[in-house]
Amino acid sequence: MTLSDRTLARFRATVEYDGTHLKGFQRQGQGERTVQEELERAILRISEQSATVIGAGRTDSGVHAVGQIIAFDIVWQHGCSSLERAINANLPDDVAVRNIIQAASRFHPRFDASSREYKYLINNQYEPAPLQRLTMWHILKSLDVDAMNSAAAHLVGEHDFAAFGSAPVGNNTVRKVMRADWQRNGNVLSFIIEANAFLYHMVRSIVGTMRLVGSGEMSPDRFEQIIASADRSQAGPTAPPHGLCLIKVNYEH
Amino acid sequence: MTLSDRTLARFRATVEYDGTHLKGFQRQGQGERTVQEELERAILRISEQSATVIGAGRTDSGVHAVGQIIAFDIVWQHGCSSLERAINANLPDDVAVRNIIQAASRFHPRFDASSREYKYLINNQYEPAPLQRLTMWHILKSLDVDAMNSAAAHLVGEHDFAAFGSAPVGNNTVRKVMRADWQRNGNVLSFIIEANAFLYHMVRSIVGTMRLVGSGEMSPDRFEQIIASADRSQAGPTAPPHGLCLIKVNYEH
Repeated sequence: MTLSDRTLARFRATVEYDGTHLKGFQRQGQGERTVQEELERAILRISEQSATVIGAGRTDSGVHAVGQIIAFDIVWQHGCSSLERAINANLPDDVAVRNIIQAASRFHPRFDASSREYKYLINNQYEPAPLQRLTMWHILKSLDVDAMNSAAAHLVGEHDFAAFGSAPVGNNTVRKVMRADWQRNGNVLSFIIEANAFLYHMVRSIVGTMRLVGSGEMSPDRFEQIIASADRSQAGPTAPPHGLCLIKVNYEH
Repeated sequence: MTLSDRTLARFRATVEYDGTHLKGFQRQGQGERTVQEELERAILRISEQSATVIGAGRTDSGVHAVGQIIAFDIVWQHGCSSLERAINANLPDDVAVRNIIQAASRFHPRFDASSREYKYLINNQYEPAPLQRLTMWHILKSLDVDAMNSAAAHLVGEHDFAAFGSAPVGNNTVRKVMRADWQRNGNVLSFIIEANAFLYHMVRSIVGTMRLVGSGEMSPDRFEQIIASADRSQAGPTAPPHGLCLIKVNYEH
């Protein structure tokens, strides 16, 4: 029996990664470690097949994920749990897959996603916190979460978000935000944002601008004006990647 | 004015560290990075004084802390907050101090401590979790927290804990445990134990043995017998250091 006799199946999986030492999700082909390349290398090793791994979100260098969704096509006749075990055994310890299932052959993690949820963490205390330094943005100055939530409320709905990022070629900058809110838990501020899709750097640009609202350097009204301006030069500095995590990708059935 | 004209003061501080790349608290003098050496180096740099840093607990290589307590004597006339800033500016990013105060000249972080609290985290899921790999012990097999709590209840009180560790020279192996309990939060199991003091490797030895109770390989009654045996060879394997964190040191006033 040759390979062509067997059935190519599409598999879907959830991926968690610690982005600290990874150059983002997407293949770079420059000897840099990326999530896509690590996954493709593991799949090649266990199946001797060169599959292309497609992800729901192209997270930037340094960004983490607990709920990235991927898909790939291979011939595999040993079941999903053995596939999961085999891939994990061949991944470095900062990347892991879970919940591998066989998906419909037309399933596409990016095009089929109805929304994505990201979380951004800020450690808001004067002193550095070594155990949180790889997953939270450290901001010394005390931030006003109520003011940040007033600003965040302006994000919800369908808007042109050109002030906060650029779109892929051939795509517009209108996105629909379903949820955007901050919570404070002791010294930790966490921001959850859900949208149908995101522009490049959109969450980090929003967080970097809202941080100015939290510190009193910008009013929530000014934040609303920046959204309305659709002018990238109006936004604040982009927040660092290590506070950001892709937590969930949703699909409508 | 010479140094001897000025007043040597004792300072006390809380220390947080990510133990991943540190060879424990105590000075080794072998070119290895330890918490004590990093602190002493920072203090030397800012004050030009060779102070000895004393810690409340000699955490092992790889163990973390959010509430280690230290003390050291230096001549410093610029206030506690400037001392804290200066030390943090000279520490690597996996060690930080906070809450620096001037302490009584007789204050000793170890001898004066009335109790210590440690937390041990287990990630109890089948798949690896990259974002938790540096702070939790990954155990694939599902653990029974109720059984582990039945075992833990036998720890509370004053016992000879020779089964779980050795004492410093000239010291006995009797310790008083005030609290020992497990909680499950999703896939994460956390164990908090408070005692007047701990033997070397005591928490990790207790956790490694309780893990056998959780997996059904040992009964809670057998765990009680092991305590009573005071025989180190009866205990289970020692749990790895990276799940352990010194969270608090208590002092009676």
